[in-house]
Amino acid sequence: MRIGLLTGGGDCPGLNAAIRGVVKHALGEYGHSVIGFRNGWKGVAQGDVQPLGRSDIRNVLPVGGTLLGTARFHPHSEDGGMDAVLTTLEAERIDALVCIGGDGTVHAASKVAEAGVPMIAIPKTIDNDVEGTDLSIGFHTAVNIATDAIDRLHTTAESHNRVMVVEVMGRHAGWIAVNAGIAGGAEVVLAPERPFDIDKVVRFLRHRHRAHASFSIVVVAEGAVPAEGSAMDFTQRLGRFGEIVAGSVGEAVAAEIAERTGFDTRLTVLGHVQRGGTPTPTDRILGSRFGVAAVDAAASGRTSVMTAVRGDEVHLVPFDEVAGKVKHVPEELLRVADTLA
Amino acid sequence: MRIGLLTGGGDCPGLNAAIRGVVKHALGEYGHSVIGFRNGWKGVAQGDVQPLGRSDIRNVLPVGGTLLGTARFHPHSEDGGMDAVLTTLEAERIDALVCIGGDGTVHAASKVAEAGVPMIAIPKTIDNDVEGTDLSIGFHTAVNIATDAIDRLHTTAESHNRVMVVEVMGRHAGWIAVNAGIAGGAEVVLAPERPFDIDKVVRFLRHRHRAHASFSIVVVAEGAVPAEGSAMDFTQRLGRFGEIVAGSVGEAVAAEIAERTGFDTRLTVLGHVQRGGTPTPTDRILGSRFGVAAVDAAASGRTSVMTAVRGDEVHLVPFDEVAGKVKHVPEELLRVADTLA
Amino acid sequence: MRIGLLTGGGDCPGLNAAIRGVVKHALGEYGHSVIGFRNGWKGVAQGDVQPLGRSDIRNVLPVGGTLLGTARFHPHSEDGGMDAVLTTLEAERIDALVCIGGDGTVHAASKVAEAGVPMIAIPKTIDNDVEGTDLSIGFHTAVNIATDAIDRLHTTAESHNRVMVVEVMGRHAGWIAVNAGIAGGAEVVLAPERPFDIDKVVRFLRHRHRAHASFSIVVVAEGAVPAEGSAMDFTQRLGRFGEIVAGSVGEAVAAEIAERTGFDTRLTVLGHVQRGGTPTPTDRILGSRFGVAAVDAAASGRTSVMTAVRGDEVHLVPFDEVAGKVKHVPEELLRVADTLA
Amino acid sequence: MRIGLLTGGGDCPGLNAAIRGVVKHALGEYGHSVIGFRNGWKGVAQGDVQPLGRSDIRNVLPVGGTLLGTARFHPHSEDGGMDAVLTTLEAERIDALVCIGGDGTVHAASKVAEAGVPMIAIPKTIDNDVEGTDLSIGFHTAVNIATDAIDRLHTTAESHNRVMVVEVMGRHAGWIAVNAGIAGGAEVVLAPERPFDIDKVVRFLRHRHRAHASFSIVVVAEGAVPAEGSAMDFTQRLGRFGEIVAGSVGEAVAAEIAERTGFDTRLTVLGHVQRGGTPTPTDRILGSRFGVAAVDAAASGRTSVMTAVRGDEVHLVPFDEVAGKVKHVPEELLRVADTLA
Repeated sequence: MRIGLLTGGGDCPGLNAAIRGVVKHALGEYGHSVIGFRNGWKGVAQGDVQPLGRSDIRNVLPVGGTLLGTARFHPHSEDGGMDAVLTTLEAERIDALVCIGGDGTVHAASKVAEAGVPMIAIPKTIDNDVEGTDLSIGFHTAVNIATDAIDRLHTTAESHNRVMVVEVMGRHAGWIAVNAGIAGGAEVVLAPERPFDIDKVVRFLRHRHRAHASFSIVVVAEGAVPAEGSAMDFTQRLGRFGEIVAGSVGEAVAAEIAERTGFDTRLTVLGHVQRGGTPTPTDRILGSRFGVAAVDAAASGRTSVMTAVRGDEVHLVPFDEVAGKVKHVPEELLRVADTLA
Repeated sequence: MRIGLLTGGGDCPGLNAAIRGVVKHALGEYGHSVIGFRNGWKGVAQGDVQPLGRSDIRNVLPVGGTLLGTARFHPHSEDGGMDAVLTTLEAERIDALVCIGGDGTVHAASKVAEAGVPMIAIPKTIDNDVEGTDLSIGFHTAVNIATDAIDRLHTTAESHNRVMVVEVMGRHAGWIAVNAGIAGGAEVVLAPERPFDIDKVVRFLRHRHRAHASFSIVVVAEGAVPAEGSAMDFTQRLGRFGEIVAGSVGEAVAAEIAERTGFDTRLTVLGHVQRGGTPTPTDRILGSRFGVAAVDAAASGRTSVMTAVRGDEVHLVPFDEVAGKVKHVPEELLRVADTLA
Repeated sequence: MRIGLLTGGGDCPGLNAAIRGVVKHALGEYGHSVIGFRNGWKGVAQGDVQPLGRSDIRNVLPVGGTLLGTARFHPHSEDGGMDAVLTTLEAERIDALVCIGGDGTVHAASKVAEAGVPMIAIPKTIDNDVEGTDLSIGFHTAVNIATDAIDRLHTTAESHNRVMVVEVMGRHAGWIAVNAGIAGGAEVVLAPERPFDIDKVVRFLRHRHRAHASFSIVVVAEGAVPAEGSAMDFTQRLGRFGEIVAGSVGEAVAAEIAERTGFDTRLTVLGHVQRGGTPTPTDRILGSRFGVAAVDAAASGRTSVMTAVRGDEVHLVPFDEVAGKVKHVPEELLRVADTLA
Repeated sequence: MRIGLLTGGGDCPGLNAAIRGVVKHALGEYGHSVIGFRNGWKGVAQGDVQPLGRSDIRNVLPVGGTLLGTARFHPHSEDGGMDAVLTTLEAERIDALVCIGGDGTVHAASKVAEAGVPMIAIPKTIDNDVEGTDLSIGFHTAVNIATDAIDRLHTTAESHNRVMVVEVMGRHAGWIAVNAGIAGGAEVVLAPERPFDIDKVVRFLRHRHRAHASFSIVVVAEGAVPAEGSAMDFTQRLGRFGEIVAGSVGEAVAAEIAERTGFDTRLTVLGHVQRGGTPTPTDRILGSRFGVAAVDAAASGRTSVMTAVRGDEVHLVPFDEVAGKVKHVPEELLRVADTLA
């Protein structure tokens, strides 16, 4: 059997563990071959192949990123993209294609599956918003990095009596913000799940600093949005910046707090450090388990499925149960973030 | 309402997060009081109380250990222990008692509950073998520490062409060994779940080193046992050491490998470093959620229960579903450890 | 003897180690008392005192920030500031005053010393630009944090074929940029010591990406400046942003590279995380040694001196040898950064 | 010019940074070739060569160990060893040989230099006892690892009221013990520089626990020795263990303390984790600078020298100033360890 393999979308720590899992298990347990494609779906379209053997995956477990490279490219939305993909897969005699990616990649996978290709997806996204699985690859490491940053900001906030605003990733869901906020002991956590009222945030901080505290940590997900009816000024601040610098929401929040409270307020935008570097053990284990499960699925003919973890167990979930859905932070966790503020 | 709180059994990272969660939520959400007892059940028996307010839990989130202290003491097996406990709880007018601990503490809790005390338990054990919950406090940090050690041993093993044996904690279950083994890319993982055959381990290593490798990592849980019928010499080696030094199983395994293969073989016994230091974000979040859930349970009169996490959700599990049971590593995870070796 | 103690200027990791060193050594070796002042020179001026005993310094060694608090306040430039300081010192019967701080604090110390107060300074600055000492407290931790960030950006840059620009602290000297740049394997390091030519940077990156590479890391010190005669556009970009967001130089550099090369370019501004969190062992040891040396100096009447480390040894350096000077990165180190690019 | 390169003796983090420094600088600055020898002097004797180009050193900066492998082999003490070395060097037309190693390697280098080979040495040893340089490669990372372990033991010692004995590396000098002891806030540090009196240690701990403390950390260098006239029992305990398990001194110290004080006492032997894993930025920078300096020395014909760092500067030191000498911990640092206990 010839198993194709690609990584698509934004990179994150743990991808190499999944690649290693696929290769070791396919070769060792089944004697199958693994054909990698470079730079995501683009490499499939262009026939950019890299056969993967044991020596290619030596020492990659603790290394972030993806040894296959990645790119944002969707075959079904490019002219001739789908044909090019199918041509390559036939030319390379691929019996099943494993793609490691987020929303977009899984969506592309379901389109390619509709064209008759046996597909298995492995979920990765530091935002952790893929439906059907407790965890996606990369999320856990991102929470660790964000918590480490909050820990560091904590001591300097306290020494200087400052409000520290820290913007973390999370476009459609606030998993990183809420988890790192709880772990780092943040006073305020703004997540996409709950449009925020800047007036309320300001009132809370004023009250806190009047009562007993001299500093505060405010964690803002990049996808946090002001509630309707919030102060106009604030809404206008948003979107002032271009593509190269992240931080527009965080910057607006920090500016409002500074202006309205008079507190010494500073912004930190964590940005790309959240998606790089050595994966945590959890992400390495998750990638390894998903890689093994994907090969087992391919070998047993279970396709159009995504690997998933629920509690202690690994499952296979049909594409149509997960495609196009966003997994949001549960109410209980949001409440813990609030109550421990 | 007056909520009592204690930490029992061996300490681990994340206990302070749970204490903080109990205190912040009890005071902030309900206006309840929290009365801590020092050094576990011993402090209850001796009336060693420490009322807990907001200032006691400042900055404890990233700190390992337990600010309440702990001790191994079981009221039901001490002469007059149970009476002393009940006397103190009455004197302190405790309406519900939250105990954070492992097997032993939960067992003691069920005994005290039988005597009519409203009890809620929060599970902690770096061994992760408490039934009914995916995770217990402390386990996640221990896996991180063990993986970090394996990463370090990896580079030195490779540079020197050595077999590195590393003994990790796990008396009745191999959660740390299996997880750290997968995360660290170990070649052999010996866990209590599967009695091992030292002959087979030696054959595997000889074959591996003959084929292509020049080094190997062998992870041994402290509770790993040789299969019946294993070589006598080996069994005799076990138990040679006293109480102060850990390492008997690992030492026996390392000695056998060294003697029979002639490979340059070294042993590292991780020991107590696995239960100390800054908790990972996961353990801080787990402790925080459990602390909040325990207070909610106390407030709503749900007692004789243990907090538990399953997948994304926090649950309450009755004592009689968990007491006296050991949660073992699932077959799928053991298989991932084997197949990726 | 009554020793006064304050921390001034920006906070950083390792200050608590120095405070602990002063207190433990003064109390233990000499039986002296230590009187802390809260929030730097401001606290001296306002008589905001906090006597320091053994219990105040328990467990502070691994904690970032300063337990005394800090503020940017210079007694000699405030109306009546100097008188207020002298009044407090007399009222508190301070025999010698130890101040832990950077340039500004040392300058203030020399002014106060001129007014007859026995002063000893301990240098701290993450920028490491204090003359007369190999290391100042806080620098070493900052380099570790910046290197960790570059390591993380490295894997994501490589996976996505990107240019990653990372702005680090360093207003007048490029110690962090050069050290973290070498440690992280950066391709370009821009430091205040050498005004940079953006054309040359762009040419270098184009050549590198044409020749063999698909990604690059560019480290920019916040105090890096374009050489005279650089492209006007570039110079105009500078200073566009206000006080709340750092990143003006880095942003300008990233924008120029993106525009002129067409490479996918991203900016990360590390900001305040560089001055917080657990100090490295090196900063803890440095703080401890400086604290002990400062007390010895006070006890033996050696004043108007700054503690310093040179190679393996701790020295005392007169204020007038260090005041108003900036220590720059040596040529050899700049050359290593270049040659290993 | 053809530069030979080898790594000898025990491995440690930072060796790859030095190899990378040699290769990048030799190729980039001078156009020289670099010929690696595998497994130290053994590879030279056996003609086991590996030419080193840019692709060999990609991404090695954060990786521990040595990509060239290492072995303990001294050409001058093996029969025909010296002839074999000279034959290989001639056959490979090596113009200068750079060896990265500790005492033994530098000693071998001086012997080979006497036979007419242009030699340059780069010092590495986690023990940091090479004379003539403030730092040797690997030491700094080892101190970080040991301090991290002490931090972890600290919280568990405190929670359980225990004495924690931790044995660290350091055969002839106590650099790791003293530095990690200060950084970790240890109560007792036993180093080879000062033979210890176990009676005094026991008295100190008894006094401390009687006065105010409930726990203690005792750091023991593996080369610490009891003072003459110490209790016989103790001396007899030493040397009970074989080669596979480290820990004899630590074990003896822990057993004595347990027996004589009755305190709950535990031993941790850090062992091989101290010499593996990702190097700290300091070790990466040190390796990089030494690699560049060694190539410059070779290019300018300065041979029979060792690279060294003193304060901020890199120097070249003649072999005869360093060979056969042990650099001990200075008195001032020992005193800081004592006074802050």
